[in-house]
Amino acid sequence: MIDYQSILDEIYLEALNSSYKGEVASYIPELATIDVSNFGVYLKQLNGNSYSIGDWDKPFSIQSISKVLTLSKALQLIDCNIWDRVDVEPSGNPFNFLSLLEQENGIPRNPLINSGAIVVADILVSKLENPKEDFINYIRDLANDQTIDYNYKVAASEKEKGFKNYAIANLLKSYGNLKNPVEDVLDFYFHQCSIELNCEQITKVFYLFSNKGKCIQEIKRLTLSQVKRVNAIMLTCGFYDEAGEFAFTVGLPGKSGVGGGIVALLPNNFVIATWSPGLNEKGNSLIGMKALEQFTTKTGESIF
Amino acid sequence: MIDYQSILDEIYLEALNSSYKGEVASYIPELATIDVSNFGVYLKQLNGNSYSIGDWDKPFSIQSISKVLTLSKALQLIDCNIWDRVDVEPSGNPFNFLSLLEQENGIPRNPLINSGAIVVADILVSKLENPKEDFINYIRDLANDQTIDYNYKVAASEKEKGFKNYAIANLLKSYGNLKNPVEDVLDFYFHQCSIELNCEQITKVFYLFSNKGKCIQEIKRLTLSQVKRVNAIMLTCGFYDEAGEFAFTVGLPGKSGVGGGIVALLPNNFVIATWSPGLNEKGNSLIGMKALEQFTTKTGESIF
Amino acid sequence: MIDYQSILDEIYLEALNSSYKGEVASYIPELATIDVSNFGVYLKQLNGNSYSIGDWDKPFSIQSISKVLTLSKALQLIDCNIWDRVDVEPSGNPFNFLSLLEQENGIPRNPLINSGAIVVADILVSKLENPKEDFINYIRDLANDQTIDYNYKVAASEKEKGFKNYAIANLLKSYGNLKNPVEDVLDFYFHQCSIELNCEQITKVFYLFSNKGKCIQEIKRLTLSQVKRVNAIMLTCGFYDEAGEFAFTVGLPGKSGVGGGIVALLPNNFVIATWSPGLNEKGNSLIGMKALEQFTTKTGESIF
Amino acid sequence: MIDYQSILDEIYLEALNSSYKGEVASYIPELATIDVSNFGVYLKQLNGNSYSIGDWDKPFSIQSISKVLTLSKALQLIDCNIWDRVDVEPSGNPFNFLSLLEQENGIPRNPLINSGAIVVADILVSKLENPKEDFINYIRDLANDQTIDYNYKVAASEKEKGFKNYAIANLLKSYGNLKNPVEDVLDFYFHQCSIELNCEQITKVFYLFSNKGKCIQEIKRLTLSQVKRVNAIMLTCGFYDEAGEFAFTVGLPGKSGVGGGIVALLPNNFVIATWSPGLNEKGNSLIGMKALEQFTTKTGESIF
Repeated sequence: MIDYQSILDEIYLEALNSSYKGEVASYIPELATIDVSNFGVYLKQLNGNSYSIGDWDKPFSIQSISKVLTLSKALQLIDCNIWDRVDVEPSGNPFNFLSLLEQENGIPRNPLINSGAIVVADILVSKLENPKEDFINYIRDLANDQTIDYNYKVAASEKEKGFKNYAIANLLKSYGNLKNPVEDVLDFYFHQCSIELNCEQITKVFYLFSNKGKCIQEIKRLTLSQVKRVNAIMLTCGFYDEAGEFAFTVGLPGKSGVGGGIVALLPNNFVIATWSPGLNEKGNSLIGMKALEQFTTKTGESIF
Repeated sequence: MIDYQSILDEIYLEALNSSYKGEVASYIPELATIDVSNFGVYLKQLNGNSYSIGDWDKPFSIQSISKVLTLSKALQLIDCNIWDRVDVEPSGNPFNFLSLLEQENGIPRNPLINSGAIVVADILVSKLENPKEDFINYIRDLANDQTIDYNYKVAASEKEKGFKNYAIANLLKSYGNLKNPVEDVLDFYFHQCSIELNCEQITKVFYLFSNKGKCIQEIKRLTLSQVKRVNAIMLTCGFYDEAGEFAFTVGLPGKSGVGGGIVALLPNNFVIATWSPGLNEKGNSLIGMKALEQFTTKTGESIF
Repeated sequence: MIDYQSILDEIYLEALNSSYKGEVASYIPELATIDVSNFGVYLKQLNGNSYSIGDWDKPFSIQSISKVLTLSKALQLIDCNIWDRVDVEPSGNPFNFLSLLEQENGIPRNPLINSGAIVVADILVSKLENPKEDFINYIRDLANDQTIDYNYKVAASEKEKGFKNYAIANLLKSYGNLKNPVEDVLDFYFHQCSIELNCEQITKVFYLFSNKGKCIQEIKRLTLSQVKRVNAIMLTCGFYDEAGEFAFTVGLPGKSGVGGGIVALLPNNFVIATWSPGLNEKGNSLIGMKALEQFTTKTGESIF
Repeated sequence: MIDYQSILDEIYLEALNSSYKGEVASYIPELATIDVSNFGVYLKQLNGNSYSIGDWDKPFSIQSISKVLTLSKALQLIDCNIWDRVDVEPSGNPFNFLSLLEQENGIPRNPLINSGAIVVADILVSKLENPKEDFINYIRDLANDQTIDYNYKVAASEKEKGFKNYAIANLLKSYGNLKNPVEDVLDFYFHQCSIELNCEQITKVFYLFSNKGKCIQEIKRLTLSQVKRVNAIMLTCGFYDEAGEFAFTVGLPGKSGVGGGIVALLPNNFVIATWSPGLNEKGNSLIGMKALEQFTTKTGESIF
């Protein structure tokens, strides 16, 4: 029997003792002020057990982690029709790279880089009656938690500083791969990124990807085939140009955000979420990456 | 003695007989409806002689030809301080290429590609009291012709369809290389492109670049050194990714626009403007390029 | 209970009926003459069962599949010291792309693209006493089959036509990332690619990656950690710029070769090899990709 | 009247007093040992006058300056048939950039970057009976000086270290844009680069480009049209990714080499050669660039 709590305790201790914890994302005032010493982990197993340590109950900005959730909603709404407008190949390049988009005539490399996520946001703006309202309700339902909400101040802040995303959206528009006005799509996009969740809530929201498409309330949300697709994309594309490194050292599908969160999962087994706001030079949580590497090494649990 | 009029007549005849005249720019409704059979040439010599043929007196949208004029105005206002924000190297790439801009951290390759011209527009928006009014007056003064104006319909049309320029401006902004709001800079930029001139007016406006910095009214507008710089940039960067071809076949500094105009000049000798709205696949006037090639071949006049 | 034989039968029938079977690799005379209608599958389970159909016993050129085997040997010899000279990120680009190598200063993106495999070959040339002899013996031992050999004619043919690989090796050399002479490294490389195996032999050779590092004779060849690394790299980088697509549709770590072979595996479960020499436009076996997609769909067995 | 000698004297003094003179090319032992304080200028006017100062009579390795001379010879032999295999556009990138070559399917951007010059070398290897012998005789004839020769030690040295050029030549071969064996073409190429000339000899060799195609012995070598082409290419492509800067500050067609030489010319007027072996970060002679800038500023002589 694996003693999960002891493993989390060990990881926690080692994280506390790390002399360097990375740099907090500085481009948004709201993120820049977060204390870099925050660290939490939450593990939720499909057998009903849960383990946690540290700041697992403090909410933080999920940022790019939201891209998996919009993709999931879009799959639910229009399924395979997504793949005419976004590819599924790893980009091997930083998350805000416009060159690739130009080189490939406006078809984003995958739905987890900014350009791809903006196309997915465009799909939701087209298909949802009240996009922002409907989407936050989808997240609330997945987590079975009506308190979840956007952080409107963070969303406004990103909008004000989001020139690169405006560049991307306009470039997509120039290729005809954005159906709605740039403003509308980015308003939705900045809001999806601003959602605040704590580690426990994230494991609840991502539960369906480990549980063959059924959410924590055992309602079928995605087909098994759709879940496999999302997991495959997380594995190959979930960590910007560090996706290979993560697959290599952690061996689980997962997704990071510049708010310092990481979620990862083993199909049919568990979901785990970590939060440590200091980022490495690739934009992924430094301590979170290490924590997950230790977790899969110590437990021996990975897809490989 | 060279018989210039006979040479223009020959060029005109050959142009009339061309079976294929290129494709009119289609991305703006106002440009798309221009008759592809228009063709005019105007040659103004510094010795006072002028020669012309065809539709030399019909005004057309100067588009990118305006980039030389904003550069000229910016040099007048802040001289060398431009070159911290824009480089002077040929781009060897299409005129709306974002990749290069990203690769070079927001410093446009030269002031005659869109990104560079947008930075120059930003400089004018900062330095001119009433940017649009002051700039059109500058053009009117250069040509000594108060009838010259923007085409507001064309400007509005470009604004509506100018997603790629919005992408560029936002990318520049993300690198801190745009001081004013994107909207203000692009409003100026779309207006500068919409200016309408006929071939004769263009030769008047560009007279100073052939005449050591003195305009047609013999007022000193630029230093000799500034004029040389502008001419060097036109030669190396004036024709998108066909700059080498133009230097090679024509051998004169010049600039083209998607409205079908081309201006070229021999320092201390003459300015020549052609107009034929059909473009080749690189975005330069097909008949205009050929006409200028013939002109320098037949007259033997080039800088090389 | 899954009836594997029936599933293979169905896949076989569908493959036979495919009107278009892709294009046989034409750049080497020896490969160009292979009959495109060949098709075989071999499935070896860790529980001892095996299933097969079609041309599973005809040997073919394994080509790039050999890259996994040289990587495995190099890991055995120097373990983590490989990763200073080769990265582990997906390339998202065709298999012979030099640009990326230049952009990243001579560090190949991963060991399964040509540049990375050439660096791995360089490591083996440095570390093995008699590189070619020692390496073929390693393969023979893995398969417990002393009949396995290089096809010297294919190796000579590739050498004669391998200008792109010579370009890559020289570029690596210019960056100091090749220790041995270009000729020696490429001689080894062209031989490793020329090895001939049939589907059954491939499943034997790759058995260790499914079996926690123990080969078919239950000898420990790699640590569990090393096996996980190789599997992660196969999943993210095993199919040129179709790696995401394969992860997405098949959901297993695997590797293809231009000889038309594909091997894939489910850790702790099985190894499967297919052979159909017709390639799709990305250079992967067209029928093989489809066969594996059907296999994981019908059996429900994938890592996701 | 311009007092050319006084101007050269001033330039010489300023060069002597420069505290930083750039870095001598270090990749070849033979070049690395050259004294960085060498500096010479030679000016040859078409009216028969000559002016010189400093180390104008010390021979040095012309390196890339030879690319103009092979181009000239190739034009003489096959004229326009060159342009199917090499383009004429500025590259805007460092001189040994492979990415561009790959991006453009094996057609070098222009004949003055390494890839283009290697294609030109291939043409000469095909067309000349005894390539190396015939080519050095061509240079001797242009200069009317039978003492000119290759430096065989430098050529051998470049061959040994020329991995990047081997990479380029093999890549060209892979695209079918090299007709002769890589070894033969590079042997010729390394020899052409090793030719040693002093400043005076260079002005003699380049005399034809200023003199409408007639060499110093008034023998017609190229047509006027061919001369214009070569001059246009020198202006737009002669200084790696500093071509725009040179056109901008100097305003003359010219060519530099990593041996520290620069040649420039004003059509129908003069040829000027400078030598100072210290290079700037772009690979052009630091003091030579400055000297030519001062020369055209002080004399007011440029093509613009």
